[in-house]
Amino acid sequence: VLTSHPDASTPTGSHVPPLSSVAAGEQRSDVGARLTDVHLLAPRLRVEERQLLAAFSARGVEATLADPTHIAVPLASPQSSVTALALDRGLATADAALLAALLAQGGTLVVNRAATARLLADRLAFLRHMIVAEIPVPQTTVAFGERATSRALSELGYPALLLPVSVDASNPPARAHDADAGEALVEHRRMLGHESLVLVQRNVLGTRLRLVVVGAAVVGVEVVRQGSDGALQYEEYQPLSPALATVGERVIGRLGSGVYEIQVVESINGPVVTGAGNLVDFRSLSAAGIDVAGLIADFALAQLAKHDTRVETGLETQHG
Amino acid sequence: VLTSHPDASTPTGSHVPPLSSVAAGEQRSDVGARLTDVHLLAPRLRVEERQLLAAFSARGVEATLADPTHIAVPLASPQSSVTALALDRGLATADAALLAALLAQGGTLVVNRAATARLLADRLAFLRHMIVAEIPVPQTTVAFGERATSRALSELGYPALLLPVSVDASNPPARAHDADAGEALVEHRRMLGHESLVLVQRNVLGTRLRLVVVGAAVVGVEVVRQGSDGALQYEEYQPLSPALATVGERVIGRLGSGVYEIQVVESINGPVVTGAGNLVDFRSLSAAGIDVAGLIADFALAQLAKHDTRVETGLETQHG
Repeated sequence: VLTSHPDASTPTGSHVPPLSSVAAGEQRSDVGARLTDVHLLAPRLRVEERQLLAAFSARGVEATLADPTHIAVPLASPQSSVTALALDRGLATADAALLAALLAQGGTLVVNRAATARLLADRLAFLRHMIVAEIPVPQTTVAFGERATSRALSELGYPALLLPVSVDASNPPARAHDADAGEALVEHRRMLGHESLVLVQRNVLGTRLRLVVVGAAVVGVEVVRQGSDGALQYEEYQPLSPALATVGERVIGRLGSGVYEIQVVESINGPVVTGAGNLVDFRSLSAAGIDVAGLIADFALAQLAKHDTRVETGLETQHG
Repeated sequence: VLTSHPDASTPTGSHVPPLSSVAAGEQRSDVGARLTDVHLLAPRLRVEERQLLAAFSARGVEATLADPTHIAVPLASPQSSVTALALDRGLATADAALLAALLAQGGTLVVNRAATARLLADRLAFLRHMIVAEIPVPQTTVAFGERATSRALSELGYPALLLPVSVDASNPPARAHDADAGEALVEHRRMLGHESLVLVQRNVLGTRLRLVVVGAAVVGVEVVRQGSDGALQYEEYQPLSPALATVGERVIGRLGSGVYEIQVVESINGPVVTGAGNLVDFRSLSAAGIDVAGLIADFALAQLAKHDTRVETGLETQHG
């Protein structure tokens, strides 16, 4: 059972409804109303969330915003949630994956599924999956301490990346162009008390792309550039090449269907997969004429129809 | 393949050998020598590690110390490790569980197994396992943000604990005796930027005990007290009561065999399991006449014999 503070309001002032009305003491019996219980897990309404609300509305479904930071889940109460569908609209982090697992345990269909969300949040698990599937990834060493990090840097060469094992906005990857910068990074990590595991990765050179996945299909490809302010910018790209299409298919084969982006570098040796993440930003694709919000709503509602059938026939499996 | 810096030395100055001699270019062919490749994963020699080295030596096996912070594992090289057996001698953390998984992938038998180590490192996963097995645990709510934490505290009541989901020496659990202290903790977490998931738990009152597990048996019980300096002290306890024996058996049924401690509070309603951890400290039990080091060496070597048989007969399964 999920509870949300009754006074919960978003930073922009719009009201966020309780994620579960059971917790508020208002027992729901109208199972037919479940289809309208669609929540976008986001603290505030961005362009993408407005497009999603409109897309659901156009399909006769009222979706609402729910701030995940207001959610508290009692561990020992596996009561059914009355939220039919939850779309995670934030960065895929370990916390978000745990929330997806707990919501799924309560009977909510979560997009992305907890298993997929975990792979988006955990760089080491993601890379291991890619390696098992023989999908090209950058050469990577797992270093368990400062000394191991220095050695891995000198062995892999420059430019190099230090990647925290967990995706975390407050602890982004760091890039070093040469040995001096590399040693400065190691020293910086020590000062910050980050003496733990880090992924040391060869920084593959080439055009940075993202393949945008909705359902089990690549619905768009964009070039990713970092603006002078550090923010990412997305630009239209030529149609999907056969090599990229193959990479997309194989990654989707490992991550499963969902709504996410696959990060790829087009190197001189072909496409190399560098990561994956939740599809938080897609306004550039919408502007280019791809109805991403509509595709997401269609996918999520189709999943929900299947999910409800499984629940009714007792075939429900736990995602977490 | 595992590598260790050739100049690696412990803080106490004693030499730590490379964890894998393959990495140093010295290909091993003598499979018969594998039994002597036993590593204690620890940065330095404590009383417990000295006792373990002596216990292995008494069984004709030379064990050595290996500093885990010197270990670097290339992700894409699933070459066999030449380390037959590794005993994790540190706090069970997420990093330690990942190291166990990577070592196991290279063919090393790790104590504790990666799956067990993960449950010792992840408080949420541990509690979910206990709840599934209907083992009594404190009432716990998973709070995904500051507002949810405040609400969970007021709902669960005081005294209360805030537990990070991952075991981490630099981020210990915090206790609040009343609502003022609780709100101060929430505020403190916000100041530190810890706005993420936290477990809010009712602090169960009673005698704190630990059940010490080696293999699949409880080999000792101790009272745990916190000294004025914050350090934990262990004292002898009466023989295992039937209620405690049952709790021990059921927890071992979930965690599997290994070397660890189960944390229990003897409440007025009977024993409540509050956590589990790697068995880092056991000198108090040794002093009380229980040969913990000998039991660990016997267990680990017996596991190794089974493990080698599995490898030879092709029945090896991946622990990670």
